[in-house]
Amino acid sequence: MIKKIKFNAAILIIGNEILSGRTQDTNTKTIALWLNSLGVKVQEVRVIPDIEKIIIKNINQLRKVNDYLFTTGGIGPTHDDITAESISKAFDLNYEIHKEAFKILETYYKAGEFNIGRQKMVWMPKGANLILNPTSGAPGFNVENVFCLPGVPSILKSMLGGLKQKIVGGQPILSHTISLRTVESEIAQSLTNVQNSNNDVEIGSYPFFQAGKLGVSIVIRSENKYKIEKCSTEILDFVAKKKIEVVDR
Amino acid sequence: MIKKIKFNAAILIIGNEILSGRTQDTNTKTIALWLNSLGVKVQEVRVIPDIEKIIIKNINQLRKVNDYLFTTGGIGPTHDDITAESISKAFDLNYEIHKEAFKILETYYKAGEFNIGRQKMVWMPKGANLILNPTSGAPGFNVENVFCLPGVPSILKSMLGGLKQKIVGGQPILSHTISLRTVESEIAQSLTNVQNSNNDVEIGSYPFFQAGKLGVSIVIRSENKYKIEKCSTEILDFVAKKKIEVVDR
Repeated sequence: MIKKIKFNAAILIIGNEILSGRTQDTNTKTIALWLNSLGVKVQEVRVIPDIEKIIIKNINQLRKVNDYLFTTGGIGPTHDDITAESISKAFDLNYEIHKEAFKILETYYKAGEFNIGRQKMVWMPKGANLILNPTSGAPGFNVENVFCLPGVPSILKSMLGGLKQKIVGGQPILSHTISLRTVESEIAQSLTNVQNSNNDVEIGSYPFFQAGKLGVSIVIRSENKYKIEKCSTEILDFVAKKKIEVVDR
Repeated sequence: MIKKIKFNAAILIIGNEILSGRTQDTNTKTIALWLNSLGVKVQEVRVIPDIEKIIIKNINQLRKVNDYLFTTGGIGPTHDDITAESISKAFDLNYEIHKEAFKILETYYKAGEFNIGRQKMVWMPKGANLILNPTSGAPGFNVENVFCLPGVPSILKSMLGGLKQKIVGGQPILSHTISLRTVESEIAQSLTNVQNSNNDVEIGSYPFFQAGKLGVSIVIRSENKYKIEKCSTEILDFVAKKKIEVVDR
């Protein structure tokens, strides 16, 4: 049996507030960095509106071509929170009260405070596994490889710790950045040569402005630290020949 | 002839640096807010890697189901900048030197500075229309309804002014926010009633934490200000009955 070494994921951001520009999404960055450390690479992100048929379609497309799918948003108590019901339909599962989630929130809230609105948050696809929420009680859940998290960034972050054990990944994806005092066009050809002789390493080039000066960050990514070191040496070699100042490495 | 009144758009963010979590995307928010003011609604955002076949597939999917498609990233001088070539292939157009873009950059750079790396930025799909860049010279372009912008946020912003005249939209999408000192579960049922009796208005509910206090912002969106006012009145009516404090309206 060949052990699988590459794992990938998609993120589905469910929320009109991101599409309208009202709210800045930051959950993509949080989830992507966390997944890198677990050896899982994010290969697609989609932001979609709170519309059931669109959610179902995207869930079913993305869960089939990724090892993991993470959704954010739409699991609160209001009318626009339709993620759990949509996931139930996507998997053709009953949408029902999750007994364990009910007990958690019954204990979490004071007597009389566990009202109808809050009870909506314990309706989930039948058989869902809970993702515990140390911040505000209401759990997320997963069905097979689809993990549903809330949209509020601080709550989402607090739930990742408990989720770690459910994610099987490969080697953590390592990254090394070399920052140069130059412009992209000066190094474009040399960098292309390095990329061409190191096909399985991801090399990105990103201009930056810092303290009023222009520069370029070269980012080298791979699961293999020796491959990163090889690229880094080749880059620093042409940089030295061109007499370009290295700001950081 | 019936005049079209709703216009929609998708945004395609092309860049490994967003998927890896290294870089926080802010272009979605910039483009979405700008499009709202022109009466165009963003209905989907996708973030994809710098891989030609994936770019081509997404371009061809999204341009057919949206009035406009905006891409960001991948139009610089380095090996990972493959947006222009991918768009050429998506539209089955030659990828060639754009004479007008060549003249612009030849004038922009000092003698001898318009090197091979920079000349890559004037290669575009045959017949592309330029989008002028007042910040750093190198233009973006559009082919039919696909508008290609750079990834650097400050440069992207500076190019939107000149692009405005190319976008035909409907009525600007208006938005009104009512902020309450409450939690979502307290207002969930009443808010559902307002949404149900105002189907064509988009009502969202978003918890916030501000100065150590919890609250909920209700966002009402529509092209019609009277419909927004009607919803707003209905919401403030139940809020008064429940004796909930209005923080802002």
